[in-house]
Amino acid sequence: MGKVIANMSMSLDGFIADPADGIDHLFGWMGNGDVEVPTAVDWATFRMSPASAEYMRAALSSVGALIAGRHLFDITHGWGGTHPVGVPIFVVTHKEPADWPHTDTFTFVDGVEKAVALAKEAAGEKNVVVASAKIAQQCLEAGLLDAIHVDLVPVVLGDGVRWFENLRGTTRLGNPTVVEGNGVTHLAYPVVR
Amino acid sequence: MGKVIANMSMSLDGFIADPADGIDHLFGWMGNGDVEVPTAVDWATFRMSPASAEYMRAALSSVGALIAGRHLFDITHGWGGTHPVGVPIFVVTHKEPADWPHTDTFTFVDGVEKAVALAKEAAGEKNVVVASAKIAQQCLEAGLLDAIHVDLVPVVLGDGVRWFENLRGTTRLGNPTVVEGNGVTHLAYPVVR
Repeated sequence: MGKVIANMSMSLDGFIADPADGIDHLFGWMGNGDVEVPTAVDWATFRMSPASAEYMRAALSSVGALIAGRHLFDITHGWGGTHPVGVPIFVVTHKEPADWPHTDTFTFVDGVEKAVALAKEAAGEKNVVVASAKIAQQCLEAGLLDAIHVDLVPVVLGDGVRWFENLRGTTRLGNPTVVEGNGVTHLAYPVVR
Repeated sequence: MGKVIANMSMSLDGFIADPADGIDHLFGWMGNGDVEVPTAVDWATFRMSPASAEYMRAALSSVGALIAGRHLFDITHGWGGTHPVGVPIFVVTHKEPADWPHTDTFTFVDGVEKAVALAKEAAGEKNVVVASAKIAQQCLEAGLLDAIHVDLVPVVLGDGVRWFENLRGTTRLGNPTVVEGNGVTHLAYPVVR
């Protein structure tokens, strides 16, 4: 059985986007190196440091389904119909978008519990990755996360969209596995139940 | 010339204390190992993992002066007169406390610029460590920090006192040096000017 993993690029002060949803400061590590990491789409090929590339290849090959929030779906225009990770996407939303044609890979689900259940089923032995801050918060509160993978970027943004907020309780994590990239430190924490 | 370094134990979600100023979740790594690291006081001897002990010994031996905020000074009762680091302390405050007897090692200073200048003078070739969140924020805003050293603790606190907030701008950092302890990951970032 795969794990449910929340994964985001985050600034040292905890932001996953600037106040205007910009990610320029946070995604640079995906393009600042020489090692190509292909994705499922033509418009996104990563070029990373060797360490990040090895880490990313392993991560990509172990993902079986993705969960995103409606806001992320909207601001990326549904990744044009195909997410770079190339797996089934479960979008948590109260209202399904009208006329969305890519229903083969996109499923719209009301509530995180249901999204996680469906994504796990779709992922089989592989992992489910939660790729939106608010959804990750809700999954953490609901005890649905097995791991938190932070791509920690060496910048203090000062303001923006926080990954972790609106949390009622404290969650203990285990020691992370650490991979040192360039412009990023990959920290993979298990959630302690 | 030494560096001016902001150093704190921080949760993954960016808190350096719980809402009641408690630090139980954040300082465990200082006592969860077998390797003793003595301090300048009888009441505090660290017992850490080998990796943290080596990191801490190097850090302690390179500190020449400490800057703290008035709130930290008050809640620790001025560390009983002697800070475990055993170096001159510069407390940033608008109002000097009455009847504080330890004026040989404690200096009360109005404003971070003046505190940093005096602390650098006292530290000589050694480093100045900034040990309060608000003072570190002010130093960062004023361009006075050379480095940010985070002892990143594997816990999501959910609420508390944030290290980084009230910042007007974005600060780029260099890649960190990383030391993996037990219950902590030591990340030492240079500030990019």
